[in-house]
Amino acid sequence: MKENATELLEILKWRYATKAMNGEKVAEEKVNRILEAARLAPTSSGLQPFEIIVVTSDEVKAKIKPVAWNQSVVTECSHLLVFAAWDTYTVERINYMFDLTNDIRGFKNEGWENYRQQLLNLYPKKDAEENFNHAARQAYIAFAEALTAAAFEKVDTTPMEGFDANAVDEILGLREKGLRSAVLLPIGYRDASDDWLVDLVKVRKSMDDLVTLVA
Amino acid sequence: MKENATELLEILKWRYATKAMNGEKVAEEKVNRILEAARLAPTSSGLQPFEIIVVTSDEVKAKIKPVAWNQSVVTECSHLLVFAAWDTYTVERINYMFDLTNDIRGFKNEGWENYRQQLLNLYPKKDAEENFNHAARQAYIAFAEALTAAAFEKVDTTPMEGFDANAVDEILGLREKGLRSAVLLPIGYRDASDDWLVDLVKVRKSMDDLVTLVA
Repeated sequence: MKENATELLEILKWRYATKAMNGEKVAEEKVNRILEAARLAPTSSGLQPFEIIVVTSDEVKAKIKPVAWNQSVVTECSHLLVFAAWDTYTVERINYMFDLTNDIRGFKNEGWENYRQQLLNLYPKKDAEENFNHAARQAYIAFAEALTAAAFEKVDTTPMEGFDANAVDEILGLREKGLRSAVLLPIGYRDASDDWLVDLVKVRKSMDDLVTLVA
Repeated sequence: MKENATELLEILKWRYATKAMNGEKVAEEKVNRILEAARLAPTSSGLQPFEIIVVTSDEVKAKIKPVAWNQSVVTECSHLLVFAAWDTYTVERINYMFDLTNDIRGFKNEGWENYRQQLLNLYPKKDAEENFNHAARQAYIAFAEALTAAAFEKVDTTPMEGFDANAVDEILGLREKGLRSAVLLPIGYRDASDDWLVDLVKVRKSMDDLVTLVA
């Protein structure tokens, strides 16, 4: 492996927000690596405050499509990944991740336990909406890793915010599980013959417009 | 290049939230590839609603450290990347990106122009806080690509939310530029002798706890 990011940059240039897919199924081993990238993503305090609903049911995809601006990829994709963030931070959820850490590492650490108490004193009393917004940002890190992993697999994706979150929550029964949909990621294979975006040049602002150096 | 994500998964396992750095400088070409990954990151409607402030000044790092829980990596890092999201969406900002797209692609497209109007009718009238939260999520995608690119470069990073955003905004003069700091990313090289986290096992919840299949 070359120890630099040039392959990642090529991968990021290759990917695009696919606007039409051909229904071809993505192999299970590829889907598993895409989900594993999301699982390995870093999150604030390691809380991983989200779940991923993987929809392969044609019936459920068909229900989601009309509440997602009728975007055709919702039903044309192989797997529809729904990144659903915690609706808030609770004592139980925070303790779960700290206990899991102690279990996996096989010891308790005073600094880590103090940090647990800090979070327990901080998050659960905050406004649920503020906590959801924080959790959703973490979900976006995992979402980014998933779409990047997909591109390494030469699997197309459509990063999708254009949907009625409440309606998707209702269809998938997310609220009862303390979750709220944050962002969708249909994965599959492009239908190049039907995709207006496939051949267009990728547009990004210049490095000068993006970056300011404070030296 | 292998056409799968196994190298990405190895990279994601290699990286960790570095708690101590040794002050060694990251080569400019590496920094440039890390920033390029952030620049190539996908964002909602391609708006790239954020900027990245790259702090190398020892004096400015020293000002930021006390408002970032005194975390030592703020001053020990080589470059401190500050991901600063737009404080809101404005007509000018939306038009800038649509005009840039037309310039780069060399043509106007009716569907694209209609989409511009949709966004112009939608975003600028929304509450600034809601728009900032939306913009911050996009910044997190770029942040994820940057920390991933750094890991490919074998450069360490510390994803950092523990800081006083208002104070960082003040130090860097971000509000005057219509920006608000969203997340920090010190980049540099680990000081393994001083880092309590470096040898600890990475903890993630199981795939079963993360993923629900709706088939």
